[in-house]
Amino acid sequence: MSIVNHQIVLTELPQGKLAPEHFTRAEAPCPTPGDGEVLLRTLYVSLDAANRAWMQGATYRAALKAGDVMAGGALAEVVESRAPGLTPGDLVFADTGWQNYAALPARHLTKLPRMEPLSHLLSVFGVAGLTAYFGLLECGKPKAGETVVVSAAAGSVGLFVGQIAKLKGCRTVGIAGGAAKCAMLTGELGFDAAVDYKAGDTRRALRAACPDGIDVYFDNVGGDVLEACLFNMALHGRVVCCGAVSQYDGDAPPHGPRGVPGLIVTKRLNLRGFVVMDFYDQSEAALADLTAWVKSGQIVVREDIIGGLENLPAALIGLLAGENIGKRMVKVV
Amino acid sequence: MSIVNHQIVLTELPQGKLAPEHFTRAEAPCPTPGDGEVLLRTLYVSLDAANRAWMQGATYRAALKAGDVMAGGALAEVVESRAPGLTPGDLVFADTGWQNYAALPARHLTKLPRMEPLSHLLSVFGVAGLTAYFGLLECGKPKAGETVVVSAAAGSVGLFVGQIAKLKGCRTVGIAGGAAKCAMLTGELGFDAAVDYKAGDTRRALRAACPDGIDVYFDNVGGDVLEACLFNMALHGRVVCCGAVSQYDGDAPPHGPRGVPGLIVTKRLNLRGFVVMDFYDQSEAALADLTAWVKSGQIVVREDIIGGLENLPAALIGLLAGENIGKRMVKVV
Repeated sequence: MSIVNHQIVLTELPQGKLAPEHFTRAEAPCPTPGDGEVLLRTLYVSLDAANRAWMQGATYRAALKAGDVMAGGALAEVVESRAPGLTPGDLVFADTGWQNYAALPARHLTKLPRMEPLSHLLSVFGVAGLTAYFGLLECGKPKAGETVVVSAAAGSVGLFVGQIAKLKGCRTVGIAGGAAKCAMLTGELGFDAAVDYKAGDTRRALRAACPDGIDVYFDNVGGDVLEACLFNMALHGRVVCCGAVSQYDGDAPPHGPRGVPGLIVTKRLNLRGFVVMDFYDQSEAALADLTAWVKSGQIVVREDIIGGLENLPAALIGLLAGENIGKRMVKVV
Repeated sequence: MSIVNHQIVLTELPQGKLAPEHFTRAEAPCPTPGDGEVLLRTLYVSLDAANRAWMQGATYRAALKAGDVMAGGALAEVVESRAPGLTPGDLVFADTGWQNYAALPARHLTKLPRMEPLSHLLSVFGVAGLTAYFGLLECGKPKAGETVVVSAAAGSVGLFVGQIAKLKGCRTVGIAGGAAKCAMLTGELGFDAAVDYKAGDTRRALRAACPDGIDVYFDNVGGDVLEACLFNMALHGRVVCCGAVSQYDGDAPPHGPRGVPGLIVTKRLNLRGFVVMDFYDQSEAALADLTAWVKSGQIVVREDIIGGLENLPAALIGLLAGENIGKRMVKVV
């Protein structure tokens, strides 16, 4: 029996906006795991704005190059194991890339619990939920009664940030694109207010939504929205720098936001960048909290699941355009 | 007897660069202290880049307006007291402004010790020394063996930052304008290296001077030099945002440095703004340290003292152009 490994290859690094023609479909033989490796079958591929950033250069991982199978984290199942600790049927989160099968070293893989639905392992109990949890609580350190603002608030991370802030007793304001997303934030997810950044003067709208200033701003987008928030920060405010999705899909921005460093000094701000991996040693406690909050209904999980490996390019391009609500993933099997 | 109070008035808020014609000399009667006030005689006026920032708008103090006696901190002597706790002959640091006499509420004034030379009360034992101390140690938190970079390194604050970092066991790199200042930093003040930002590619020069990256960057200048440092920060580096002297003398800058927030995220940086007043409750311990370090010769004090109230405008304009080495002040009496 010869199993075909369907793949999506990044044929060309984009100059400007990412488009379908930067990808092509390919087939390869199913790989054979070496000593210490496992053969993984990809179940759900996670779509993340960071996927696009990897095409711009080295970030917290090496840059992608033309001809690579497109990289991406996924929920995957062990098919064959040549490593201790993992056996066929085990679930893991791994950078399988955009393909059906990958043989990877088992060393850095952690067995995940089976649960219903499995997709929660990529959303609230995966990178998205943990990013929201550690970024907000460990970096932002919100106190009850403070005003917390999050951008890309209807996105995979943002909607957890807002909900966690709310259950910690904060006034919660989401920034999102379009009236529909904003209505969902205040209507279904309990945000106190929402600002539509596509509706015009974000700086003024934030001032109206946050009359006492912003104590914690969780930044997923960078650019103009970050600038608008800097001008509305309260004294001793904290900015959690999580991502810059406004800046990934195109050329490197020619400059940064105004107010740096002037507003940082006069308002005594703290800007802190983080990557979720830095906090993985605290995952157990975080997952216990998240599990309890989902069970009690204090956190509502929203997912955006698309079917079919071949739809990965469109799914990523759409994510960069902001078309998803909640965690976007592609179900491969 | 009628005492004349010579004053320098800010006749016009500058658009663009500050120039002598924005100031004029004036005379007024010596003020009479009210209940709870003291009459102060100005001895030494402190020149600070922040003086120029006050003309741009509200900072940590209200903005200046045309027609005001120019504001400025000074070492002053109590001439007459109508407040408990202060008596004639006592020394205080106060915002007398640029004039011989000021009547001010005694509430916020603290009696300073007499010492030789008195000017040290405005440099190492004044705002400059305390700014360096708290900014570096409380905000930057350098560890022995780390690389500390400071800009405006030959200025009032910068030269203390570098020397304190050095005595804490750090590798110390100063950024300054011109070969003479750079030679002084490495020759007389014990810096390990100096980078002349007027000599061209600062980003590349910093890379050469800091092969392992910058762990702590103490930023006095903002703008291009901040940008060059951001690109050279080490993982988990800290940026202490103290001032932005490159941006005070002219229009508000049209944008901020590149790399914000992208580099903050990928390098997990922490940028923290501070104002020295926030740490005044810890002054006693700080002054004890600074006193010991000056006595032992571990910190060399450099001052730039100019004579005559009428020279204040030129002294400030020259400071903004970077002509001083060490703390600049004008001796009025």
